[in-house]
Amino acid sequence: MVLHDKIGKRILVAGGAGFIGSQLCDRLLERRDVSLLVCVDNLWTGLADNIAHISDPRFKFELSDIETFQTSERFDEVYHLASPASPPWYMAAPRRTISANLGGALRLLDLLSKGGRFCFFSTSEVYGDPKVSPQPESYRGSVDCTGPRSSYDESKRVTESLLFEERRVNGLDLRVTRLFNVYGPRTRVDDGRAVSNFISQALNGEPLTVYGDGLQTRSWGYVDDIVEGLARYFWRDPIDYAGPLNIGNDREIPVLDVAKYISDIMGGCKIVHEPSPPQDPTNRCPDLTLARKILPGWECEVRYEDGVRMTLEWFRENMAQVDKVRNA
Amino acid sequence: MVLHDKIGKRILVAGGAGFIGSQLCDRLLERRDVSLLVCVDNLWTGLADNIAHISDPRFKFELSDIETFQTSERFDEVYHLASPASPPWYMAAPRRTISANLGGALRLLDLLSKGGRFCFFSTSEVYGDPKVSPQPESYRGSVDCTGPRSSYDESKRVTESLLFEERRVNGLDLRVTRLFNVYGPRTRVDDGRAVSNFISQALNGEPLTVYGDGLQTRSWGYVDDIVEGLARYFWRDPIDYAGPLNIGNDREIPVLDVAKYISDIMGGCKIVHEPSPPQDPTNRCPDLTLARKILPGWECEVRYEDGVRMTLEWFRENMAQVDKVRNA
Repeated sequence: MVLHDKIGKRILVAGGAGFIGSQLCDRLLERRDVSLLVCVDNLWTGLADNIAHISDPRFKFELSDIETFQTSERFDEVYHLASPASPPWYMAAPRRTISANLGGALRLLDLLSKGGRFCFFSTSEVYGDPKVSPQPESYRGSVDCTGPRSSYDESKRVTESLLFEERRVNGLDLRVTRLFNVYGPRTRVDDGRAVSNFISQALNGEPLTVYGDGLQTRSWGYVDDIVEGLARYFWRDPIDYAGPLNIGNDREIPVLDVAKYISDIMGGCKIVHEPSPPQDPTNRCPDLTLARKILPGWECEVRYEDGVRMTLEWFRENMAQVDKVRNA
Repeated sequence: MVLHDKIGKRILVAGGAGFIGSQLCDRLLERRDVSLLVCVDNLWTGLADNIAHISDPRFKFELSDIETFQTSERFDEVYHLASPASPPWYMAAPRRTISANLGGALRLLDLLSKGGRFCFFSTSEVYGDPKVSPQPESYRGSVDCTGPRSSYDESKRVTESLLFEERRVNGLDLRVTRLFNVYGPRTRVDDGRAVSNFISQALNGEPLTVYGDGLQTRSWGYVDDIVEGLARYFWRDPIDYAGPLNIGNDREIPVLDVAKYISDIMGGCKIVHEPSPPQDPTNRCPDLTLARKILPGWECEVRYEDGVRMTLEWFRENMAQVDKVRNA
């Protein structure tokens, strides 16, 4: 039984119930040329709630690990973001993290139609604790491949390697982005990274925990801006560049400033300091020279103050989920 | 039916028919505490000839990829060196290279007895084209994870990551070495790296091909010295250090000098220059401070002039094999 129009594009999103993945699914369903969108997610860090609003008949959810996903379907486009992205999550399950990234990519190569496009979500973590700032795509990085963050960093690196080598040897149609920090609605309440931690703590009347002195900087991109850049690069704009392409916000902000801002708009929160996690990068900022050339006109437009407020509103409205997770 | 003494050690060597793997098998069979030695090799770059001399009843050869190797046996020690190691070989089959390294390690973790030891053969290629020389184990490397050498470099890096994380999370008994260039008897005639290329060309009366100006240096370790270091680290000496440990010769020699030396002892050969392969490292030399501390008394003792002569003699005696490969 054929469930979809053979003329339209068949698309698979691995990790489509996650924070970014689900927003990507929303964008993909705005396309008229899509006849089937299969979202594969094992709900390890993804949430069924993130896709519960989708009623489009072209959309199909499959509960599965991507590396063992079984189907007779072949896809014209695959999007691979099946991986935890937050240190406490991947540090607790490094083998599974590596398997999701690389095993997932190997499986997706088999599920791709001849001539189909492979879109991979890599990360600024391939740069490790960078010795140059901002980081251009040509920077080879400073990752400790024996360290406690390495399962994520190295599995993203080796998956890039697999895909670029498939391009060199077999002509794979490839697009690879390296995402810098992203925040916004649909972040897990227990994600474990700074913005969502602060908001969750503030809403619960708890002190905000800053790791280290808080002077380490991050470049936070609001999710709408980031997904707009991804859509342009992955399918919308005419582009002949395989990547890697940095996507992020190049406004660097100390972690402590965000804590203070959230404290301000919440009417004052206590800020406490705890030791830094191991090998926490001291800075992380994208060099966007290439992104501005490849995606003319694209910029992160949402100021972090606005983005933080919108995220806080979303968290407040989803307090039920917050409580559910906290009481689990 | 139990084929072995349950009291002795059960050992698996993945890649055991290769240049170094087969010499490792010879050493392992010198141990009295070994009851079973299973050599798994798919003969991609390994050669049946390398193990044809072994008649020990404890030795068992299994023709298989390691990542899909099926057995009900569990092993007290596993040695993982299933991977091509020469650029023309892995650049021609990057996906398979990545699968052998990481997929092999995942499979071997499943085949390891509880409390068993995992010994992994990593590489100086994790340092990429190094910006410091010599390279200490703490150097994080300079690898282009999108480049044409990356399938080897990055799959070794991510396999290190997997294993060190398995140690951190699950207490894996681990030993990891990073091998620098090794040469000697049982190198494939068509291996494609400098020493074997020069010898093979010299014996065939052809000009010796030097890539680039030949001033790039390598630190060549004669295989007997290297395997002696491996045996001490992996099983013989009482050591409480998981690695990574550089193993190699720290005498740096320009490639051109080796060509000239071989030309001299062969009575004069023409030397021709060809362009360097992409991303060929300009230098590579182990910092052996840690190896000398962990393995007191161990050194590379064979001078390269002697090692090259012994290798040349072995190649001469195996001319039949040379001819067989050349005429294939």
